[in-house]
Amino acid sequence: MKSKQQAVRVFAPATVANVAVGYDILGFAIDSPGDEIIARWGDEPGLRITKIKGTNKQLPKDPAKNTAGLGALRLLQDLGKEDLGIELEIYKKMPFGSGMGSSAASAAAGVLAVNELLGKPLQKRELAKYAVIGESAADGAIHGDNVIPSLLGGIILIRDNESFDFVKLPVPRGLSVFVIYPEIEILTKDARAVLSDQVSLSQLIAQTGNIAAFVASLYTSDLDLMRKSLQDHVIESQRAQLIPHFYELQQTALELGAMNYTISGAGPSMFGFAQNTLIAEECATAITAKLTDHGIVSHSYLSPINTQGAYKM
Amino acid sequence: MKSKQQAVRVFAPATVANVAVGYDILGFAIDSPGDEIIARWGDEPGLRITKIKGTNKQLPKDPAKNTAGLGALRLLQDLGKEDLGIELEIYKKMPFGSGMGSSAASAAAGVLAVNELLGKPLQKRELAKYAVIGESAADGAIHGDNVIPSLLGGIILIRDNESFDFVKLPVPRGLSVFVIYPEIEILTKDARAVLSDQVSLSQLIAQTGNIAAFVASLYTSDLDLMRKSLQDHVIESQRAQLIPHFYELQQTALELGAMNYTISGAGPSMFGFAQNTLIAEECATAITAKLTDHGIVSHSYLSPINTQGAYKM
Repeated sequence: MKSKQQAVRVFAPATVANVAVGYDILGFAIDSPGDEIIARWGDEPGLRITKIKGTNKQLPKDPAKNTAGLGALRLLQDLGKEDLGIELEIYKKMPFGSGMGSSAASAAAGVLAVNELLGKPLQKRELAKYAVIGESAADGAIHGDNVIPSLLGGIILIRDNESFDFVKLPVPRGLSVFVIYPEIEILTKDARAVLSDQVSLSQLIAQTGNIAAFVASLYTSDLDLMRKSLQDHVIESQRAQLIPHFYELQQTALELGAMNYTISGAGPSMFGFAQNTLIAEECATAITAKLTDHGIVSHSYLSPINTQGAYKM
Repeated sequence: MKSKQQAVRVFAPATVANVAVGYDILGFAIDSPGDEIIARWGDEPGLRITKIKGTNKQLPKDPAKNTAGLGALRLLQDLGKEDLGIELEIYKKMPFGSGMGSSAASAAAGVLAVNELLGKPLQKRELAKYAVIGESAADGAIHGDNVIPSLLGGIILIRDNESFDFVKLPVPRGLSVFVIYPEIEILTKDARAVLSDQVSLSQLIAQTGNIAAFVASLYTSDLDLMRKSLQDHVIESQRAQLIPHFYELQQTALELGAMNYTISGAGPSMFGFAQNTLIAEECATAITAKLTDHGIVSHSYLSPINTQGAYKM
């Protein structure tokens, strides 16, 4: 029943959700940071979380309440292996509440780690459902725009969350990403609360035009079209107030040649695409310097779009 | 100054706008019906509409108030040739107010006819702007979702109407279209009036997920994804009331294997995609029969997606 390996160590990357024009339906992975999880055989039956390192936050060790545990639990149940003794050690290597998909990375890593320990009974793509379920331990919601790209890599379009229907979109060559994480706190519930539950029909028209063009730009590597399409007509203007100096930072990025600059997920992290690494570096340097001037500590991450997703280390 | 040809005759096809998930931003052309326009050199300076055939509707002969004339006028102005004597004859070969882009076909044909008569000073693609201006003679609005596909063919995505920014999307092989035109009247202003000017955020999420997936399905010829994505969460439910028996007809089409069945433009025409011509034919036959049973005269049109657009005959 047990595979020969005694333990596996898995990495799952940080992600950027929403991606300007894909609120709740688009996300992509970057190379780092990310979370690591070790899964090993245990002596007692059932799944247990034995260790959580790298965070001051009190995360639940009950697997059913932990994003890394819940998806793995459901996977084991569906495989009829919930009585196997498996221990998870969680190594958080990215900040919570950063808007970079921390809980999603743990969910992706937990599911992949258990599947690897079992000798890969499911294909990676088949794990997406369990990773999404895992992430629902964080806030009860079913949404795959962080956790599926963390698991599978690339730019992921979630056509429909409830049916786990998603598409891995192509990534144009040479595209660079910079992510800026300012050390300020935005609660996801606050980020949701500032959003109106209504949008105008003209906003819908503008947003659908842009997301359709964004998808077309990925298939054609048309970076001019991509640049034009990355304009959010719905979310950014409502959430920008939660991030001090947002528009100043955005202007800095655009003046330096970034294709766009907007909020990553629910924030406070922000990201931009650039047509090469030099522009991405210059943007990251200039923006972190601006934040320092304003007395805000920040961190920057430079990466291509990660197309591999979570992997066994 | 004048080209050698004394007259040109141009055809511009009917179009389906909105395309389920692309309200105001998507449209495609079919092979027929369509309008024809003859442009010939005239003796008096200026652009004149000398003949309008094929409609009982009193269309304005003032070029500035006619969709076929206004775009051509602006084209001539931009070329500095507004003093040339040019006569247009308009042959309407499709019904007005059908939801198949009748005024748009005339606008596309008018612009193309004048450009051809002049010896093609502009590329066809460059005429899109003038065709859009031409169509604005009908209702004052600037929208390219009928007129640009009528001019250029294919499935056209309008990223932004105001900047004339559009993308010609790929057409999967083998896709068939059936269009049903029931002889009932829906005024465009009524079709607009039934639409709420607000949509919910969850509708936005569903609609953006579907249009993004629809675009992806066109680039990958993934007809399963296309079928799933062609579900309108915003417009259809509001406009269906304007078309008697709409849901019965829709059910008939879906049961016969159509990929979708929804309203074309502002209606009353309806359309569906099918994976082959047999299914399209069966759908058209069954739906026109149902309408006959209900005492409604209807017409059906079978076509591939037309990728050529307007052309010189």
